[in-house]
Amino acid sequence: MNKKMIIYILAKMVGVEGLVLLLPAIVSLIYREKSGFCFLIVSAVLILIYFLLGRKVPKNKRIYAKDGLVIVGAAWILWSLFGAVPFYISGSIPNYLDAFFETVSGFTTTGSTILTDIEVLPMGMSFWRSLTHWIGGMGVLVFVMVLTSLDDDDSMHLMRAEVPGPEADKLVPKARYTARILYAMYFVLTAAEVIFLMFGGMNFFDALLHAFSTAGTGGFSNKNSSVAYYDSAYIDGVITVFMILFGVNFNLYFLLRLRNWKEALKNEELHAYLGIIAGSIAIISLNIVGMYGNILHAFRYASFQVASIITTTGFCTANYNLWPELSKTILLCLMIIGACAGSTGGGIKVSRLLIMLKSIKKQVKNMLHPKAITIVKVNGKRINESTMKGVYIYFICYIMITMVSVLLVSINNFDFATTFSSVLTTLNNVGPGISQIGPVENFYKFSALSKIVFCMDMLLGRLEIFPYLLLLSPELWRRRF
Amino acid sequence: MNKKMIIYILAKMVGVEGLVLLLPAIVSLIYREKSGFCFLIVSAVLILIYFLLGRKVPKNKRIYAKDGLVIVGAAWILWSLFGAVPFYISGSIPNYLDAFFETVSGFTTTGSTILTDIEVLPMGMSFWRSLTHWIGGMGVLVFVMVLTSLDDDDSMHLMRAEVPGPEADKLVPKARYTARILYAMYFVLTAAEVIFLMFGGMNFFDALLHAFSTAGTGGFSNKNSSVAYYDSAYIDGVITVFMILFGVNFNLYFLLRLRNWKEALKNEELHAYLGIIAGSIAIISLNIVGMYGNILHAFRYASFQVASIITTTGFCTANYNLWPELSKTILLCLMIIGACAGSTGGGIKVSRLLIMLKSIKKQVKNMLHPKAITIVKVNGKRINESTMKGVYIYFICYIMITMVSVLLVSINNFDFATTFSSVLTTLNNVGPGISQIGPVENFYKFSALSKIVFCMDMLLGRLEIFPYLLLLSPELWRRRF
Repeated sequence: MNKKMIIYILAKMVGVEGLVLLLPAIVSLIYREKSGFCFLIVSAVLILIYFLLGRKVPKNKRIYAKDGLVIVGAAWILWSLFGAVPFYISGSIPNYLDAFFETVSGFTTTGSTILTDIEVLPMGMSFWRSLTHWIGGMGVLVFVMVLTSLDDDDSMHLMRAEVPGPEADKLVPKARYTARILYAMYFVLTAAEVIFLMFGGMNFFDALLHAFSTAGTGGFSNKNSSVAYYDSAYIDGVITVFMILFGVNFNLYFLLRLRNWKEALKNEELHAYLGIIAGSIAIISLNIVGMYGNILHAFRYASFQVASIITTTGFCTANYNLWPELSKTILLCLMIIGACAGSTGGGIKVSRLLIMLKSIKKQVKNMLHPKAITIVKVNGKRINESTMKGVYIYFICYIMITMVSVLLVSINNFDFATTFSSVLTTLNNVGPGISQIGPVENFYKFSALSKIVFCMDMLLGRLEIFPYLLLLSPELWRRRF
Repeated sequence: MNKKMIIYILAKMVGVEGLVLLLPAIVSLIYREKSGFCFLIVSAVLILIYFLLGRKVPKNKRIYAKDGLVIVGAAWILWSLFGAVPFYISGSIPNYLDAFFETVSGFTTTGSTILTDIEVLPMGMSFWRSLTHWIGGMGVLVFVMVLTSLDDDDSMHLMRAEVPGPEADKLVPKARYTARILYAMYFVLTAAEVIFLMFGGMNFFDALLHAFSTAGTGGFSNKNSSVAYYDSAYIDGVITVFMILFGVNFNLYFLLRLRNWKEALKNEELHAYLGIIAGSIAIISLNIVGMYGNILHAFRYASFQVASIITTTGFCTANYNLWPELSKTILLCLMIIGACAGSTGGGIKVSRLLIMLKSIKKQVKNMLHPKAITIVKVNGKRINESTMKGVYIYFICYIMITMVSVLLVSINNFDFATTFSSVLTTLNNVGPGISQIGPVENFYKFSALSKIVFCMDMLLGRLEIFPYLLLLSPELWRRRF
């Protein structure tokens, strides 16, 4: 393990967060809010840390895959720990653990909140809260890679550790350029959404914040009643479409930019993703039509909520807590499935689901023809054994983490639906759950222990478990550096 | 696939069920119940089927692993379909689907019931209901193997397909003798429990029925309030100990018989199993001590319920539905874990849990030392890659089946805890769940669709999924025999 290089990169990352904090400071300045000073103080400290530890490039710049995992795991915790400070010292969130929860929820694009009244937040704080979604969506390391120059050979390790899905592809040979292309597409799509939302009558500030949340598939809104506040079929429609777009693998947008329509559109994961969305919307629409009078209304609310949950965004336009159990259970299943690999969404990812289903099919084939050699293909590409094993182990860890978390949260003595869905919604980076954490409720009521469990689940979910498994492994710490 | 041999063996199996049905007929005769005729009618039909299809041995007696799975999958469905008929034609259970549910619940040793009043059942029916547990516990095919002579080379395929756990060991080279040894030990333990229960003041009939249920880790009682009816610390204790004993891998008892104490006692799965039991009892005792006044009472009820749930028996002495959420959630986790491989219990089995946890550890090791070769050992024995893969795929199927079942059962619109635990309790062959299917409730209230889902889950759980995956595979049916 290259300890010096790890500290060097982490210091660099912390410095970048210092720079990023100047953005909400500017917003505060525009709205003449005193709380803007809090951003400046934290920013200054972080930039100081950068000057102390992140200026001198170590001689040995080589980092390995495990270093990449350690850096990613530590970077997300550091960004959250420092990012929470402005909320805390400004008094916007008077309890530091709550501020940390809110920031982790932001960066991991979960969108669960402990705030009971969002609308009293200063504009700068509200902006910072939504900005964390935007940066966390594409990845804080990928973001740092866009701004700074890390050695290209090694930085792919960092990207692999951060980009969701069973396998991370390079778009172009150099990781830094891959990062820039990703962020460019991300920026264009976000800007497009801002414009569309402003056409629907939203002011620029609200449009920007909601676009940040949609892009990162986060779910923070600056309105207490989320998107339902606008009560506009047009805005619902725009956000529904953009949520679905941000749940798609960004590699496909890159293919579109290369005018390779054919390959982009025959993507198997995309078909499955859109198929699950269409099927869920159809069933829920029929299931709730009695509550909304006509099928068009039912379709509007069903499609918004389905898109919001499968992409793990977490915006709401309807209190689905009142829907029949079938619809609620479909939403819980969508939380687990999540969006496409290589998107900003969470969950176990559609491609992992495909790999698992095809593995089952393969196993049955092997029972019928014990000697036949069968392979698993997704998108026409053969999945190698080690990737498949990674998927299996990932899924096993995922279920174990769910079980342990549910046990720990059950100490609160809330009903089972609350406990279970609180873990699902945080581990899959969704936002709201059902029962006592439904769309019109929040996470304020949980104990400190539960909030710590949720913070861990959110980070585990966003970084897909392995970086933290490594950080928690005693062997990593026992070995001499 | 050897179609003729499959029909031959199935006819033989059906004939054996015909003989077995004479036992409850005798019980009915002793108690002078007219409903005894129903057993005789079904028995006659089944023996007739045997004479028509099961007398002529096919020329080609060779059966393959897949034939074994098909035979096991089909045999359990046939035994349940025919076994339900006496309940139905006697009017004891006026709806055939309910009778089928009760019989599947019996053979799969689940113990979920649709009966609202068990005590009005004729003695013969009550006896048959509990006898299904006893036969299902060790396996209907293993039972048939004890009574008839199947070709020894091939019958190991049948045993492998039926004995729970990731790997089935032969105790002795010949499968038939293995089956006989297993049933002999099973018989001795059951007889011991009958004697212990009679010392507690139970009459012979009740003691026999409760011993059948304990031995098979089933959970049917002939009392509406289950074991709570006796309200005796002695009886609670005896049943607790025997439940735990029947959840142990029977191979260990064979080792004990060979006086190989050392190897039996250092079994890793056994340690984990007893550790989980001890830990769960300790936490639950502390969690419920406020409800029971003193720690001894709390310990008594905690240990009975923990033993009952982890061994997937399902007897109750306390309405744990009233316990705090933590205790209930621990019980739900125990349902999933289940007992040891090679026991009569259900769940995913402790040994699979061990293999999965060790696989995670191995994966972390591989991240730290990508080139090191690491192996997974359980009980000092190396687990080969194909067994591990089998465990992973099994677990993935298990979770997928849970999700699909929960979706289908949610159509009933019961609360989430009811829906979720109803699937867990049937798929893991436990019996009771929480909320509306708690220890003092039953499964009468569910729709026909749900009951069919539960029947499938019980069979999938008991036979560990793969036989039915094969039966459901279109390729099996497309191929010419």
